[in-house]
Amino acid sequence: MEKFQLHILGCGSAKPTTRHFPSAQALTLSGRLYLIDCGEGAQLQMQRAHLKYTAVDHIFISHLHGDHCFGLIGFISTLALHGRTQDLHVYSPDGLEQMMKEQLAFFVNGMAFEVVFHAVPTDRPTLVMDDGHLRVTTIPLCHRVPTCGYLFEEVPALPHIRRDMIDYLGIPHYAIRGIKEGNGWTTEDGRTFTQAQLTTPAAPPRSYAYVSDTAYHPAIAEQLSGVHLLYHEATFAEADSSRATVTCHSTARQAAQIAKAAQAQRLIIGHFSSRYDDENILLQEAREVFPQTELASELRVFEL
Amino acid sequence: MEKFQLHILGCGSAKPTTRHFPSAQALTLSGRLYLIDCGEGAQLQMQRAHLKYTAVDHIFISHLHGDHCFGLIGFISTLALHGRTQDLHVYSPDGLEQMMKEQLAFFVNGMAFEVVFHAVPTDRPTLVMDDGHLRVTTIPLCHRVPTCGYLFEEVPALPHIRRDMIDYLGIPHYAIRGIKEGNGWTTEDGRTFTQAQLTTPAAPPRSYAYVSDTAYHPAIAEQLSGVHLLYHEATFAEADSSRATVTCHSTARQAAQIAKAAQAQRLIIGHFSSRYDDENILLQEAREVFPQTELASELRVFEL
Repeated sequence: MEKFQLHILGCGSAKPTTRHFPSAQALTLSGRLYLIDCGEGAQLQMQRAHLKYTAVDHIFISHLHGDHCFGLIGFISTLALHGRTQDLHVYSPDGLEQMMKEQLAFFVNGMAFEVVFHAVPTDRPTLVMDDGHLRVTTIPLCHRVPTCGYLFEEVPALPHIRRDMIDYLGIPHYAIRGIKEGNGWTTEDGRTFTQAQLTTPAAPPRSYAYVSDTAYHPAIAEQLSGVHLLYHEATFAEADSSRATVTCHSTARQAAQIAKAAQAQRLIIGHFSSRYDDENILLQEAREVFPQTELASELRVFEL
Repeated sequence: MEKFQLHILGCGSAKPTTRHFPSAQALTLSGRLYLIDCGEGAQLQMQRAHLKYTAVDHIFISHLHGDHCFGLIGFISTLALHGRTQDLHVYSPDGLEQMMKEQLAFFVNGMAFEVVFHAVPTDRPTLVMDDGHLRVTTIPLCHRVPTCGYLFEEVPALPHIRRDMIDYLGIPHYAIRGIKEGNGWTTEDGRTFTQAQLTTPAAPPRSYAYVSDTAYHPAIAEQLSGVHLLYHEATFAEADSSRATVTCHSTARQAAQIAKAAQAQRLIIGHFSSRYDDENILLQEAREVFPQTELASELRVFEL
């Protein structure tokens, strides 16, 4: 099974503290690296996590608040310094391209690659990327500006050929790809074998959902049904739930309610308000509803 | 004597490493805080240094390369989150206002203070700020884009009144300000006393020069004559001096030559290329020319 990991690069909220970096995560699937949000310092955190950040081809921005995207210009500049030539794809709600075009022209002039901006819809789940390994779909969220999360689903792998059957039946090499893709096989003496008899199933595809800034929004649970790993913002504790309502954020308990309703396997909470010196209050409140909850923290790695 | 300190927030160069932040410094003079360059992460470093960054009223940017200004937008956003109402002054070579206007309008909309951009000349020394405590003059430098350093000079303090003389001669309170400013005093019986007899001199004004990215540029030594503390970029070692020439940077030895020619009291070198794992080679090369040299490092504090 290919290595599929989530690296938390930053899990603070807008007001900076020395405990957290602003939002940024890296998702790695056997060497490929996908960047999710890019707050100030994301590139430094990638270095600290020993991630090969020059391998990033796709960046997913949830919304255009500074704590989710101010690290982009610095990161792109650094890629240019490294002599990158390959296109870089940046997905975000509409507006980012206009905001960055002039900056890129000024600060990263003469760069040998293109930054391709993709404005993604935030009002309905939309497949925005499929590179043959991962499929990425937007998750419509409810915040003060157009915002979406992203659902990352492994592209199902083809089943494994049963070498014993192939050898026993003398199936030629040229037929194997077809069997992996669903064909059966008929021997010269007329015996037929189904794909299921000739293969063992591949590992089931894994999924990760990134739910960025949002008011409590139970409508997303259906789209996230059965997700393996869910990150959900949990800016506030219950005692501050009125603040959550006003600012269109969630409490830790609400994050856990989403995880429970979606029947997620595991929940990570983050995007902590700077007011909590000890975030265990958030963890406790979430675990009362959804025990398989963990706290995000900088450079923590979660295996999928 | 008022406390006058330099905090190094970042002293790396453009290519990021985990050892350094990009360029940023904070100069503090008895509670007032002046920010010098503002690379990505500067606001985080100010927090780590326990500097009261909401007190910053003036920011001096040496040139418009990303490693000297990408932290600005995040820092200004944070000031807005703190409910700032007072104007913020940003000094830089021409072009920054145009670059930031749209970003500020988009990301920091509705902020209750104004960012006042001052385009400073980089071709001649020019007084750009005098707040009654510090005078700041540009230092013309020689880099790939218009660049200046900044010379920070304490405004000379008035001399101290000799309380013993005031009491002995019965000088009234209303006359004291005039004496501090240069007046003498004549007693009723006709004896005259000069200011020098009635006061003791204030501490001599101190000065700090920030010499940002520049090719070796000995013409600046005259302007920096006798400076108390000089920061000079020292991107390269002698072995890489041809690289310094091509990129319009200085070697450590050249930084020391400037310090020596200017008869500076002390030299700090920084803006280290990412290629040196051990910067002591730079320190050694500088000290051979100018022994009072120190290496910049993150969160190191220099007293003036």
